[in-house]
Amino acid sequence: MTVAVIFVSRRAAGHDVEYAAMADRMDELARQQPGFVEMVSVRDPKTRVGLTVSYFVDEESARAWKQHPEHLVAQSRGAAEFYEEYRVTVAEVTRSYGFP
Amino acid sequence: MTVAVIFVSRRAAGHDVEYAAMADRMDELARQQPGFVEMVSVRDPKTRVGLTVSYFVDEESARAWKQHPEHLVAQSRGAAEFYEEYRVTVAEVTRSYGFP
Repeated sequence: MTVAVIFVSRRAAGHDVEYAAMADRMDELARQQPGFVEMVSVRDPKTRVGLTVSYFVDEESARAWKQHPEHLVAQSRGAAEFYEEYRVTVAEVTRSYGFP
Repeated sequence: MTVAVIFVSRRAAGHDVEYAAMADRMDELARQQPGFVEMVSVRDPKTRVGLTVSYFVDEESARAWKQHPEHLVAQSRGAAEFYEEYRVTVAEVTRSYGFP
């Protein structure tokens, strides 16, 4: 079952260049993971609140990405340097609709 | 089981004032619904892409909000006037963690 990983965060002030480089690299790396489906990411520059939802084909793929060595380093830096707060919510997709 | 409703959209150009009024009203109304838990919403003014995740205590509460008469009108206007594209994904939360 498709799994959605919802990541909400608020960026601390500063470290903008380093953060952008890390975020770009994580975006690139996530898309290369086995079982990756898609990802959408939005940050409001004013509030510094960001929301990223990534989808994987199953729970195992999502867990494997969480444990990727380079991602683990990024998670650690995120908590120590980049984010004032964050929350990860993992959920199993039951339906989806939209337009066009 | 907690249900996450993930709404991703891209705003068409124009209608900014009407859209802001509708979005504010839907935000206010959603928070009053039985079973509402929380909501986080971010839009990037440059790309016009927005992500909103709202949480409800169960599937029934999420469905009831979708069918709220005022929300149905907003959905209809959204498709006709405000959005170039949107997608709603409903998912059941399995775990959540974060800091602080």
